[in-house]
Amino acid sequence: MSEQFVPHDLLPTELLVQTLHAACVAAAVETLPRFRANTTVSNKQQAGFDPVTEADQAAETAIISVIQDAFPDHGIVGEEHGARASNADWQWIIDPIDGTRAFISGLPVWGTLIGLYWRGVPFAGVLDQPFTQERFMAYTDATCMRVSELSVRGNTVAPNKTRTTTDLADAIMMTTSPRIFNAKDGARYDALEPKVKLPRYGCDCYAYGMLAAGQIDLVVESGLHIYDIAAIIPIVRNAGGVVTNWQGQDPSKGGSVLAAANESLHEKALAVLKG
Amino acid sequence: MSEQFVPHDLLPTELLVQTLHAACVAAAVETLPRFRANTTVSNKQQAGFDPVTEADQAAETAIISVIQDAFPDHGIVGEEHGARASNADWQWIIDPIDGTRAFISGLPVWGTLIGLYWRGVPFAGVLDQPFTQERFMAYTDATCMRVSELSVRGNTVAPNKTRTTTDLADAIMMTTSPRIFNAKDGARYDALEPKVKLPRYGCDCYAYGMLAAGQIDLVVESGLHIYDIAAIIPIVRNAGGVVTNWQGQDPSKGGSVLAAANESLHEKALAVLKG
Repeated sequence: MSEQFVPHDLLPTELLVQTLHAACVAAAVETLPRFRANTTVSNKQQAGFDPVTEADQAAETAIISVIQDAFPDHGIVGEEHGARASNADWQWIIDPIDGTRAFISGLPVWGTLIGLYWRGVPFAGVLDQPFTQERFMAYTDATCMRVSELSVRGNTVAPNKTRTTTDLADAIMMTTSPRIFNAKDGARYDALEPKVKLPRYGCDCYAYGMLAAGQIDLVVESGLHIYDIAAIIPIVRNAGGVVTNWQGQDPSKGGSVLAAANESLHEKALAVLKG
Repeated sequence: MSEQFVPHDLLPTELLVQTLHAACVAAAVETLPRFRANTTVSNKQQAGFDPVTEADQAAETAIISVIQDAFPDHGIVGEEHGARASNADWQWIIDPIDGTRAFISGLPVWGTLIGLYWRGVPFAGVLDQPFTQERFMAYTDATCMRVSELSVRGNTVAPNKTRTTTDLADAIMMTTSPRIFNAKDGARYDALEPKVKLPRYGCDCYAYGMLAAGQIDLVVESGLHIYDIAAIIPIVRNAGGVVTNWQGQDPSKGGSVLAAANESLHEKALAVLKG
């Protein structure tokens, strides 16, 4: 991916970064006051439980407004509002609240995800957790060097850097739930779990932030939509990590995802998931 | 439990509350700088993975020092340092970091737990999460009215109040992991999980905070030590919740735990867990 030509001169880095930050702030204005308040939870799907809060919809509207002001010709793909300008080279891909189940349970492991693709190639992304005040951001600057930022309370900024763990037996692995997989994927996941040092559940997108920040080693999920993974890919890759699907291929359209701290660990986990 | 005589005049409420706050602050001085830093993780048990960080041990030492200064005659039971003055009427029960696995994974769902028993009866407790700056506290005041506090950022204090959900089909339930149970308990848990609206994993003590704060409806765990539950019991009860073991009996020594938002929901969950 990183070898592919990307027209940086068409997208000033400063404006890009300002827009990412502004979109996160605009989203948080809608999400935070509704977090741990009495939100109206409705079901998108009749089968199963897929809650959508007012916060989801209002945050996406706010993000779209910020992006359209800055980049009126860009395309936008939103979880809640569908797609617009779908033929544009630049496509913004939005999940206003990734982890709505965590959101309605009061847990600060949901996040606002905003990704930017150029002709289908992941280019920039941000994962914002406004309750804990953490913002994981990745973008390519004017010199083509991508940087990742981790903003924590106290206005500190630290570069994201993945771990050097190379053995599965030393790895901390996260997934949203061992029970979200279909039978086939579940069997593959169950083959991997006993090989790692510590499996953890229940973190949604926040798990990828912990991977980028060097706190854990693997994230394994399946059944993702494009908006679940678009923002994540540059955050993980710019921090030194490797992210593919369970066949070792391009994960940028969603589906199964294996994100690892480094190439060596990715290879070992992939061998198990491939079966 | 609440009917039992407790000698409030022996323990001034103001000093109790000051001590609880001071102990949390002293613990956070040891835990927070080591959270997401390169901590030395050692294994307490040879079989399995049970990490103990320097933070665990240093935080317990700090908590003990605060308690001994305020109440030199009280007994103390710590996870790391064992028991002292074990015949005293008042016993402090400490878990400096409940959720060390979350701690070493960078996840802000661990907590410092400090409970106080009088002749074996839960009397006061605090659950502190210093990264998110949330402190759930429960104690009996001089007039025998127990109060619960939830401190969130911005120095706001809100009373804890559990939900009114009465049907399992409407309930959000948390457990640390569906895979922590032994075979017998696992079968019982697995009977309950499909009956609730939304199960969530991976929250350790933080789940009880969410229960007390009215964000979720049930917490189900087993294999707990006394220091995992001592602080939790008054926090849940004072907020209106019900907490017993899976046989409906006193949970104050650890073992299995069923904590519910109210009596009606507790009864329904208990019927399933009893089998």
